[in-house]
Amino acid sequence: MNTRREILDRHKSKRGKIAIQGKMKIGNSHDLAIAYTPGVAQVSLEIAKDKSKAYDFTNRGNSVAIITDGTAVLGLGDVGPEAAIPVMEGKSLLFKKLSGVDAFPVSLATKDTDKIVETIKLLEPNFAAINLEDISAPRCFIIEKRLEKELSIPVFHDDQHGTAIVVLAALINAAKVVNKKIKELRVVVSGAGAAGLATSNLLYKYGIKDILVLDSQGIISFDRKDLNNFKKEILPANKRKIRGGLKEAMKDADVFVGVSKSGVLKAGMVKTMNKGAIIFALANPMPEIMPALAKKAGAEIVGTGRSDFANQINNALVFPGFFKGLLLARHKKIDNVMKIVAAQALAAYLKKPNKNKIVPKVLDKKASLAITKAVAGYKTK
Amino acid sequence: MNTRREILDRHKSKRGKIAIQGKMKIGNSHDLAIAYTPGVAQVSLEIAKDKSKAYDFTNRGNSVAIITDGTAVLGLGDVGPEAAIPVMEGKSLLFKKLSGVDAFPVSLATKDTDKIVETIKLLEPNFAAINLEDISAPRCFIIEKRLEKELSIPVFHDDQHGTAIVVLAALINAAKVVNKKIKELRVVVSGAGAAGLATSNLLYKYGIKDILVLDSQGIISFDRKDLNNFKKEILPANKRKIRGGLKEAMKDADVFVGVSKSGVLKAGMVKTMNKGAIIFALANPMPEIMPALAKKAGAEIVGTGRSDFANQINNALVFPGFFKGLLLARHKKIDNVMKIVAAQALAAYLKKPNKNKIVPKVLDKKASLAITKAVAGYKTK
Repeated sequence: MNTRREILDRHKSKRGKIAIQGKMKIGNSHDLAIAYTPGVAQVSLEIAKDKSKAYDFTNRGNSVAIITDGTAVLGLGDVGPEAAIPVMEGKSLLFKKLSGVDAFPVSLATKDTDKIVETIKLLEPNFAAINLEDISAPRCFIIEKRLEKELSIPVFHDDQHGTAIVVLAALINAAKVVNKKIKELRVVVSGAGAAGLATSNLLYKYGIKDILVLDSQGIISFDRKDLNNFKKEILPANKRKIRGGLKEAMKDADVFVGVSKSGVLKAGMVKTMNKGAIIFALANPMPEIMPALAKKAGAEIVGTGRSDFANQINNALVFPGFFKGLLLARHKKIDNVMKIVAAQALAAYLKKPNKNKIVPKVLDKKASLAITKAVAGYKTK
Repeated sequence: MNTRREILDRHKSKRGKIAIQGKMKIGNSHDLAIAYTPGVAQVSLEIAKDKSKAYDFTNRGNSVAIITDGTAVLGLGDVGPEAAIPVMEGKSLLFKKLSGVDAFPVSLATKDTDKIVETIKLLEPNFAAINLEDISAPRCFIIEKRLEKELSIPVFHDDQHGTAIVVLAALINAAKVVNKKIKELRVVVSGAGAAGLATSNLLYKYGIKDILVLDSQGIISFDRKDLNNFKKEILPANKRKIRGGLKEAMKDADVFVGVSKSGVLKAGMVKTMNKGAIIFALANPMPEIMPALAKKAGAEIVGTGRSDFANQINNALVFPGFFKGLLLARHKKIDNVMKIVAAQALAAYLKKPNKNKIVPKVLDKKASLAITKAVAGYKTK
């Protein structure tokens, strides 16, 4: 772990992490007359005639907005739009480094879903895709659904779908390592926020039909009267109609996916899992169970969201390459099959996954490129 | 002049003119844990406790939004938000090159003044200053006035104040060259849009008390029944109570400032001006009168907005340095004296102005720095 002092100093030394870079030279008045007035008028006229030309003559085609309202930042919660900026800049830095995408942080000073939707619609002409980020559930679902209908560029809520894709990729490889058929796995997902529900939904769509999802009240089950529509959607995955808490859910499970809170998974629960147990404890910065403890209790494969343990299962493995693929193909929509194809490409990038390496390293640009190719090559309906 | 083909090709070669640049290295997982999760949480917590820390730990303090609705782009008019982007990118490029400011183009898909104001307020947490750009009059005045009240960061409509400042600077030096007292000049301003009114107002505040402003209906005079409040404000400057058109206005004038339309100033009108006549024909790309014609008719000093004639009187001389000054001092408001101080600094930067050089070159970084110092050193009330 890094010391707080080192982290703050590194951020302060250059005041943040990103800047604007010019990519056309202006060395003399001839250049100036091309880049700016009067020459630039010719470019404006071309785009006025045909808006799609903005993709040829401006940076729009490589530009993504990372949009947050600061309500669900990391594990910190509602810290506000200003405090979200360092995270957005960090994402922008990874976008640029791993796939060359220009991602612009946009922290909005409102929590009103209508205003957020409206603002993004007004900003649309500048971007080729929208990355929603760190917006709390269930508002994030509402915002995403409306934007999918009302925008003509793709929208991807990374906390949901980035997590879902990286978990599916990790699970494909983990199942292979423990020699189980992925579609026959019994999966427990702890956490029914943005990440938990999206992950459960994608695993279900992929073909895993036995998934128990837990929120703060326990297992999402048919008898519950307190479920919103987003939670009800995942009810069919509780096909054995199990009720109770995490303890009941974990009995005879093959897989634990934690997108909830530090320390909720106890060693005693791990001991009741099936042999070849797979634990993805993704709470940040402190996981649902520490890897050493999980292993001692019998888990075969353990992953976390952190860079200081083996198997870092982090969205950063996904979003840079995924968006680059969207931009290259100029996709207008994202669907579940596209997400599955991306997960499969990420998993397949590791020729021989093993217990301690079920996913590539976050900084592996070639892994990012593998996702880009899969997404760019995918044909939407 | 550049050919259309060259202009389009240069824009297409790298798809536009700006990009994102990382300014913190991430070479390994240690760096990653600082720039992104989990380390970045420490930075978010600092800012959550004290929002002003965003100026230390993020790029906010060097970030400006260039905001347009695409309604008054160059001389082209209402070309829409997409077609405005090349101009915004050109400005961003000049910001970066001349003063190191990171300026983010924001083209809004609405012309509704309330929505524009609301959107900018929601975007405020990301920026240290707002540059309004190419928004048509009188909407631009309304938007600016509201934002000045409702934002806690400074707002500068460049078409108004950038033009006003550069014209005042040019006039300070031109008056010196023709050996007249600037405050005794008779000035004609052709054009009562954003640039014309702001320029007239600043010249008046500076102390030039005889200014005739013309809109499409002629001289703004007391008998006119069709004047909006913004035009009425400048009525006191018509102190000789002159009525009529450009011909009547130009008789015995010392200075012509054109921010109107190509070709409106005729040689015959120039001949009726006082000796030592000063002509700033700033319409783009074709000026109100071509320099050779104006000289032939007796003008002593001629400037245009173009880079292919002597005396390029262009806002680009002002905005990069002006904003850098705002950011360095963390000014919250802009006032008229600040604008005058900036104009004086730009004028004074040329030790010995002459007929063919009344302002520095646009690409002269040291001229930009002179404005930065003046603005940063200015004490707001």
